[in-house]
Amino acid sequence: MSARIDFYDDPAAPESNSLVPSVNVVVINKTGKILMIRRSDNGNWAVPGGAIDLGESLPEAAIRETLEETGIRCEITGLVGTYTDPKHVILYTSNGEARQEFSIVLTGRAVGGEPTPSDESREVRWVPRDEIYSLPMDGSMRLRISHFLEGTGKPHIG
Amino acid sequence: MSARIDFYDDPAAPESNSLVPSVNVVVINKTGKILMIRRSDNGNWAVPGGAIDLGESLPEAAIRETLEETGIRCEITGLVGTYTDPKHVILYTSNGEARQEFSIVLTGRAVGGEPTPSDESREVRWVPRDEIYSLPMDGSMRLRISHFLEGTGKPHIG
Repeated sequence: MSARIDFYDDPAAPESNSLVPSVNVVVINKTGKILMIRRSDNGNWAVPGGAIDLGESLPEAAIRETLEETGIRCEITGLVGTYTDPKHVILYTSNGEARQEFSIVLTGRAVGGEPTPSDESREVRWVPRDEIYSLPMDGSMRLRISHFLEGTGKPHIG
Repeated sequence: MSARIDFYDDPAAPESNSLVPSVNVVVINKTGKILMIRRSDNGNWAVPGGAIDLGESLPEAAIRETLEETGIRCEITGLVGTYTDPKHVILYTSNGEARQEFSIVLTGRAVGGEPTPSDESREVRWVPRDEIYSLPMDGSMRLRISHFLEGTGKPHIG
């Protein structure tokens, strides 16, 4: 299993050598719970997401990644904000890629499916909002979810 | 001068071979006019923008491109929407790059500078809102500006 290591404004961070447009999506069910995965690559909790492939739009990528990682089908309902801080560098130990953060965070609504783990998500859960912050989570993910919960999303520099 | 040719859902479009994250920004001045450029590469009117470089955030790229293309300094105030339709392909005749549309559109406020043409912008103007639609403009740019004017921005598939 390859590892993912996040660096924030860290002198030890590798210089970024790639910028891959990605999407995350905060998916809500009928009772207002949030769809969360426990990532296989670092054990942290996160909302589903991933890179946009050639031939698909940003919302299409969000819907595909959510289904792949969680088993849940969703539709896209809006935007939370943009998360593109060049001082956040993600190192993939498998190939030395040092990827500069570049994620657009959308909102979605579940329309079907059952929580189902995958290679990328060792657990999948509908999490009540008041339990979110008690989960182990990367700082950048906590920021994104807090912007959703507080309704303060915008184009973020840091 | 190399040319830029836009294809929309067109059987004659080249297959896309790149996806470059870009930004556009709708910059407003104190009287509510919109900052527009006439593009050097195809003669159409547009709001400023361009590709995000390694080492800069999305809002930083928006501010830099606006200054380069218009002479206007701005600050970023919000998000209009995402424009990532894979059926919109932009061919650059200089090198055969066929780029899939991927632009995030932000809003901004002018804080200084004077309209100044550049290599990429043969004219730069503050355009009153009721004159916008009379300018020659690519369909994808007209869509983005209409979402700003009507307040209907969101993550767009098409």
